[in-house]
Amino acid sequence: MPTKYVYEFSEGSADQRELLGGKGANLAEMTRVLGPDRVPAGFTITTEACVEYMREGTEPPGLEEQVDEALAKLEERAGRRLGDPEDPLLVSVRSGARESMPGMLDTVLNLGLNDRSVEGLARATGNERFAWDSFRRFVQMFGNVVRGIRGERYEDAIKAAKRDREVKQDTELDVDALRELTGTFRSIYREETGEEFPADPREQLRHAIRAVFDSWSGERAVAYRRLNGIPDEWGTAVNVQQMVFGNKGPTSGSGVAFSRDEVTGAPEPSGDFLIDAQGEDVVSGVRNTLDIARLADELPDAHRELMDILRTLECHYKDMQDTEFTIEEGRLYLLQTRAAKRPAQAAVRFAVDAVEEGLLTKPEALLTIDAAALDALLHPTFDPQVDYEVLARGVAASPGAAKGEIVFTAGAAVRAAGEGREVVLVRPFTEADDVAGFDAARGILTSEGGKASHAALVARGMGRPCVCGASDLEIDLSAGTVSVNGTTLSEGDRIAIDGTTGTITVDDVPLIEPEITEEFRTVLAWADEVRELGVRTNADTPADARRARQFGAQGIGLCRTEHMFLAADRAPKMRAMILAADRDERRAALDELLPLQQEDFEGIFEAMEGLPVTIRLLDPPLHEFLPHPADVERDVERARIEQSDDLQELEHTLERVHSLAETNPMLGTRGVRLGILHPEISEMQVRAIARGGRAVRERTGHAPHVEIMVPLVDYERELELMRELIVRTAEEEGLEDYSVGTMIELPRACFLADRIARHADFFSFGTNDLTQTALGFSRDDIEGKILARYIDMRILDRSPFEAIDEPGVGQLVRMGAWLGRKEKLDLKLGICGEHGGDPQSIAFFAESGLDYVSCSPYRVPVARVAAAQAAARIRAWEPD
Amino acid sequence: MPTKYVYEFSEGSADQRELLGGKGANLAEMTRVLGPDRVPAGFTITTEACVEYMREGTEPPGLEEQVDEALAKLEERAGRRLGDPEDPLLVSVRSGARESMPGMLDTVLNLGLNDRSVEGLARATGNERFAWDSFRRFVQMFGNVVRGIRGERYEDAIKAAKRDREVKQDTELDVDALRELTGTFRSIYREETGEEFPADPREQLRHAIRAVFDSWSGERAVAYRRLNGIPDEWGTAVNVQQMVFGNKGPTSGSGVAFSRDEVTGAPEPSGDFLIDAQGEDVVSGVRNTLDIARLADELPDAHRELMDILRTLECHYKDMQDTEFTIEEGRLYLLQTRAAKRPAQAAVRFAVDAVEEGLLTKPEALLTIDAAALDALLHPTFDPQVDYEVLARGVAASPGAAKGEIVFTAGAAVRAAGEGREVVLVRPFTEADDVAGFDAARGILTSEGGKASHAALVARGMGRPCVCGASDLEIDLSAGTVSVNGTTLSEGDRIAIDGTTGTITVDDVPLIEPEITEEFRTVLAWADEVRELGVRTNADTPADARRARQFGAQGIGLCRTEHMFLAADRAPKMRAMILAADRDERRAALDELLPLQQEDFEGIFEAMEGLPVTIRLLDPPLHEFLPHPADVERDVERARIEQSDDLQELEHTLERVHSLAETNPMLGTRGVRLGILHPEISEMQVRAIARGGRAVRERTGHAPHVEIMVPLVDYERELELMRELIVRTAEEEGLEDYSVGTMIELPRACFLADRIARHADFFSFGTNDLTQTALGFSRDDIEGKILARYIDMRILDRSPFEAIDEPGVGQLVRMGAWLGRKEKLDLKLGICGEHGGDPQSIAFFAESGLDYVSCSPYRVPVARVAAAQAAARIRAWEPD
Repeated sequence: MPTKYVYEFSEGSADQRELLGGKGANLAEMTRVLGPDRVPAGFTITTEACVEYMREGTEPPGLEEQVDEALAKLEERAGRRLGDPEDPLLVSVRSGARESMPGMLDTVLNLGLNDRSVEGLARATGNERFAWDSFRRFVQMFGNVVRGIRGERYEDAIKAAKRDREVKQDTELDVDALRELTGTFRSIYREETGEEFPADPREQLRHAIRAVFDSWSGERAVAYRRLNGIPDEWGTAVNVQQMVFGNKGPTSGSGVAFSRDEVTGAPEPSGDFLIDAQGEDVVSGVRNTLDIARLADELPDAHRELMDILRTLECHYKDMQDTEFTIEEGRLYLLQTRAAKRPAQAAVRFAVDAVEEGLLTKPEALLTIDAAALDALLHPTFDPQVDYEVLARGVAASPGAAKGEIVFTAGAAVRAAGEGREVVLVRPFTEADDVAGFDAARGILTSEGGKASHAALVARGMGRPCVCGASDLEIDLSAGTVSVNGTTLSEGDRIAIDGTTGTITVDDVPLIEPEITEEFRTVLAWADEVRELGVRTNADTPADARRARQFGAQGIGLCRTEHMFLAADRAPKMRAMILAADRDERRAALDELLPLQQEDFEGIFEAMEGLPVTIRLLDPPLHEFLPHPADVERDVERARIEQSDDLQELEHTLERVHSLAETNPMLGTRGVRLGILHPEISEMQVRAIARGGRAVRERTGHAPHVEIMVPLVDYERELELMRELIVRTAEEEGLEDYSVGTMIELPRACFLADRIARHADFFSFGTNDLTQTALGFSRDDIEGKILARYIDMRILDRSPFEAIDEPGVGQLVRMGAWLGRKEKLDLKLGICGEHGGDPQSIAFFAESGLDYVSCSPYRVPVARVAAAQAAARIRAWEPD
Repeated sequence: MPTKYVYEFSEGSADQRELLGGKGANLAEMTRVLGPDRVPAGFTITTEACVEYMREGTEPPGLEEQVDEALAKLEERAGRRLGDPEDPLLVSVRSGARESMPGMLDTVLNLGLNDRSVEGLARATGNERFAWDSFRRFVQMFGNVVRGIRGERYEDAIKAAKRDREVKQDTELDVDALRELTGTFRSIYREETGEEFPADPREQLRHAIRAVFDSWSGERAVAYRRLNGIPDEWGTAVNVQQMVFGNKGPTSGSGVAFSRDEVTGAPEPSGDFLIDAQGEDVVSGVRNTLDIARLADELPDAHRELMDILRTLECHYKDMQDTEFTIEEGRLYLLQTRAAKRPAQAAVRFAVDAVEEGLLTKPEALLTIDAAALDALLHPTFDPQVDYEVLARGVAASPGAAKGEIVFTAGAAVRAAGEGREVVLVRPFTEADDVAGFDAARGILTSEGGKASHAALVARGMGRPCVCGASDLEIDLSAGTVSVNGTTLSEGDRIAIDGTTGTITVDDVPLIEPEITEEFRTVLAWADEVRELGVRTNADTPADARRARQFGAQGIGLCRTEHMFLAADRAPKMRAMILAADRDERRAALDELLPLQQEDFEGIFEAMEGLPVTIRLLDPPLHEFLPHPADVERDVERARIEQSDDLQELEHTLERVHSLAETNPMLGTRGVRLGILHPEISEMQVRAIARGGRAVRERTGHAPHVEIMVPLVDYERELELMRELIVRTAEEEGLEDYSVGTMIELPRACFLADRIARHADFFSFGTNDLTQTALGFSRDDIEGKILARYIDMRILDRSPFEAIDEPGVGQLVRMGAWLGRKEKLDLKLGICGEHGGDPQSIAFFAESGLDYVSCSPYRVPVARVAAAQAAARIRAWEPD
């Protein structure tokens, strides 16, 4: 039997993407679901035919006959013939590879028109202008797409025609003008190709099919494949489909219909339509469309059929649908269906309703939600009913809206918050020193930096709205003003920012507070039933810890101890510790810090009520706690001039500040290296943990489970030494329920994870630093300078600090997880980088076999849903 | 047949390390080579016996009998019996695992002594004091080592004995005192163990053997195994050996002998000996030793036998030997033999002689050389005949000695060199700006930083002697003085440094220039015959290129173009380019740089006469070419005060300097990222390469083969875009013989090397940056602050910037090489980090299948020999 190269739509299904291409398989599936009369009929020429064509340089034997046969059936079903001078059948020809591929021949519409059939179309639609406009478009599209004639040649001819007739718009060209233009277009074709424009529809079709095959080897398609790793040998399919017309009079029409309300998710179909119009008229907004409910009045049969079909499609595709339809002389055709885009609240509503209606199982319902979009439900927003004037725009760096008086320093923010005032912290950029101000401010606004800047990261971590990199702002810190587009604002003036959209305004826009609706709560509960990945939070304060627990966090995956040393009452003691002249002086300073640190831990342990708390030992280089060298230099200079008594001490500070300064602090004396150099600091922290834990157990009866985490380990022995110190100190302090583990955040650690695992009870992958080191990307330096350009040049599609870089950083994580578990089967594995809150990355971590992700409190609900989706997808692959 | 647990030395050989342990196998091998009469007889109890003992908690059945049997043979061969009251046999008992393992029981000497046999020993040696001293040492050692009695108990008793007798030294204790002390020691034994000190030599031996077995499970041995990854199940062997005595009168003696002159390598044995003495007397220097040649006069037979044996050992071990011997009553025993440590010139001399004598093949001869030590032959040295006063010491950072006037700035160095003066550049530390001064100075001296500091790296690269981190120096740049230990030197004062030893002096020590001797030349020629790895050089100037060719470099593996922009005539143009207000201004600045850059390339191409030259496109962040922000701020301030016309321009510079400043420059906007952001810079460089190549071809007839190298690639598409730019520009300029490749110097690139290889003709592994990123170690920040501490704490044994970190960075290199070759079989692979000049790392690269290493000019000879050694070793593994 000869190879079957041609499949009618009614023969195929969705799982035949390889053979029929994506588009062909989709059309077949819709035909299968709705029956052959509801989808304009047609057929698909297989990718195998294309592969044969490429190999042999000509159509494979039998293809032409099979196309003829399929066409004959199509004509029979449609009751019209290609090229018929009365009521001609017209077809579209489209390419369709296994994956959507820009750069290939896309579409030829209206194929089948010629001098005779155009008159038939005019009669059938009662619209001569439409018929001739369709013809001239076909000639143009065919010449351009099938034969590669430059578009300008046609554009020039249209311009000339408009000039001749002294009109401005294409739509003003009348039938005569269009007829003449069609002639001109055919002359262009003759000039460019040396051939007459084919009048025979069969010849038109042969040309178009061959053009689709050839386009697979076209320069742009090849370049696209190279870039996206698509094999050359896939080939493309060709889809030939009957065209239907919604502009054939009062019983015809076109429209779009959603299976449910696309804004609220309420279970009533929504959409728009127009009578006697084509689809593009509905979309273009030239005419006022009617609500889909009105279709019941205009064409009640079609309306009833459409409602049934929407329900059928929802059941079949297990998701809310967004469809395009055309009614041709009373007969309803579905042209397309796809999952409906919808705002977060509608997605949640649909998921809950669909389960209650018995339409979907819980895992299926969860998979219909865009987890990333749920973020919008957790933050205040500007009231969408109120108009306001945009002062400037920046990067939408951390979602939510905030209003308040402008302050320019963290100190001012803290003071104002102490007085009960609401403030927005406005800075060119922020640094570690400013973190206290983040907590005190309602929102953060910067003129520099992007989504991965310090301000953005900290704001997201703390759930503070943040707009970054609003480069139109001119901030004069010494004058205490911010100027933008002619407006100058001073400290104390009110401002409002929306970190979800990046807008800034001085209008007093009312804010709407978020609420976790009953439906959202239901979805989250289902997510917890379905997911296997634990969800913890990154929290450094009791307030964050409590918030995260409200959002469902199952523990703290990362508690950074350094932020605790930046508070006003600790910073001077921390500095004294660092500047200590000898070990005794340092111990004395540490003794003063210990009770404060203990207090911090007690607050967090209480908030977590016995859930696990992963505490990371001090990580940043010590110079981060010291003043900037330039500031100290200025102080020294002043003291020298004033012959101040402080001079000697200031000079000592300057010397120490200089000696601690680093060229690349990210790669310097930090993490475990600090613990090796200054074991007394780690010791103090372990004591504070132990004592805090005991105090909380005695007070509340909840013994915290502490996981002590050593950061930045490279070498097995680093962890071995630190573990010795931790165990020794914990024993001295009588700490019982604890474990010791490490951040895996350096490429070397991933390679040596088996050896490191010997000394670890758990690993937490620090994907922020792992990304920085594996890619050689300093987040602070790359974002803003490089990332945007890289995305423009298609080197990257998302920032590697947002979505885990799977082939590089992701493989390192997998290698680390695998080697770690090889050595120690019950090693607990988590991840605590920014990526722990990104749904795409969460799916990767779930597939990598991690035990939990940890993310900022406000991302916890997102992570719960994303984790459930990952589990649902993984189960779908697994054999029963 | 029962398991054989005991092997006489004459039964074993060197390849039985697993069964007999390292020491046992060595003793057996020496016995096998020299015959059973030349090595004090003995036997080895196998590691299997130890394993059985550990498993069962008791000696395996048959062991005791086998030991008795071996002991009987030993007594028979020695003609003495253990415990004999006349002339007793004494034995030593030693542990000996497969690998040498500190932390285990080491040695018990003089086993077999008791109240009766001590008298026999006294009679046999005619030395009663010696006999009793041996006995009390045995009792002490046995109690301490075998039964774990604390050493202080014995020390206290000795102190008391000396107090009683009013003497100061142990040696002043007479026979009576020693006899009494032995009694006291036995009382201590009784008190501590509750048992009598065993008088029966058989019981002594049983105890000692069991103690060796037990020591395998001792705390320190277990800790050592954990740290070094030695399996617990290996077990240790036990060696029991007859003791011989060189202090038995005028026909006895002890000594050390080298098979050749250990200083020059000349083919005459050397060494020292003493008549009527034990080995420790020779080593301790208490008596004046005699030259080994004098043995011919004293004991001519023993001398002749020794000479024969030395020759035999050299033949057998295929290397120059360092032996210990004892003559007991005219009978010569060899106690130990091992490869002789020797200075580089002796190593070279031996290698050449050994081949000429037919003793060794060329590969064998090459393997006897310590390649790293050859470095010493390539640099001037202080005349070793002349004494001088050391002013201070620092880190020996780059070998060779240098003298000259002190200068404190690169500019001063350049001016002085221009006037023909010799200078030494003295700085607290150095930076990119100082590089011109390195070339102009004879040597570099810094008070900060270590072997991996900028100064050390650049100095080694340029072959300049350098002493770093001489922390006693107080350098006052503004005063133009350097003070050290009370001496203050000013600019222009003369100073001398030795970068091989780290010493600094103000004495006018004469320097000895190095010469590549005929023998060294021979060795290098053989290395070239044997090696498979190519050896190229890292060279940025024609002078370096020529020097490297003299040393045998086969091409340039890394030509850094950034150094070219630091020269006095280029720096202002480079700054103008960076500070350009728009693209036109930048192009104009680049047009001025182009001919200068072309000149640079011409010089290098001419020097290399058609050998391949790998040119790396601009790599460092642009701010490295700009003045420091603090300097510009000062200038702006001054201009403001003086109301200078330059103010506006200076402010512009300041703004640009600030906008280019980076938190972590190592991970910032550099490498290929520069080329993507500023393609016009790369374009200029490719044009300069092409035009320079053409000019040289026309002038000399040698067409250079250029390899254009793109640094710091992470993503396939980065290289794809750069390749497009390079190919387009090269075609415009008519460049023909060139290839395009990339540095692989980021962990991600190693993981994605197959995709990157699609656009690369070659890879060069940049192991410096790969080490920095894989380990998260900023070279500038870690060295000096962390490395020393890490080596102290046994986290590291060598700096990862000197020797490649095999399990981390090394595996990344192998992964990159494997993936690259998988995609492209003929991909050329090289390495151009500092590690390219380190013999241990070169062996790793050879095993990894790389095509070449590239190192600084002065390391080229070292690399040639190291590469030959690697090839010889690899061939030795391979089946024939």
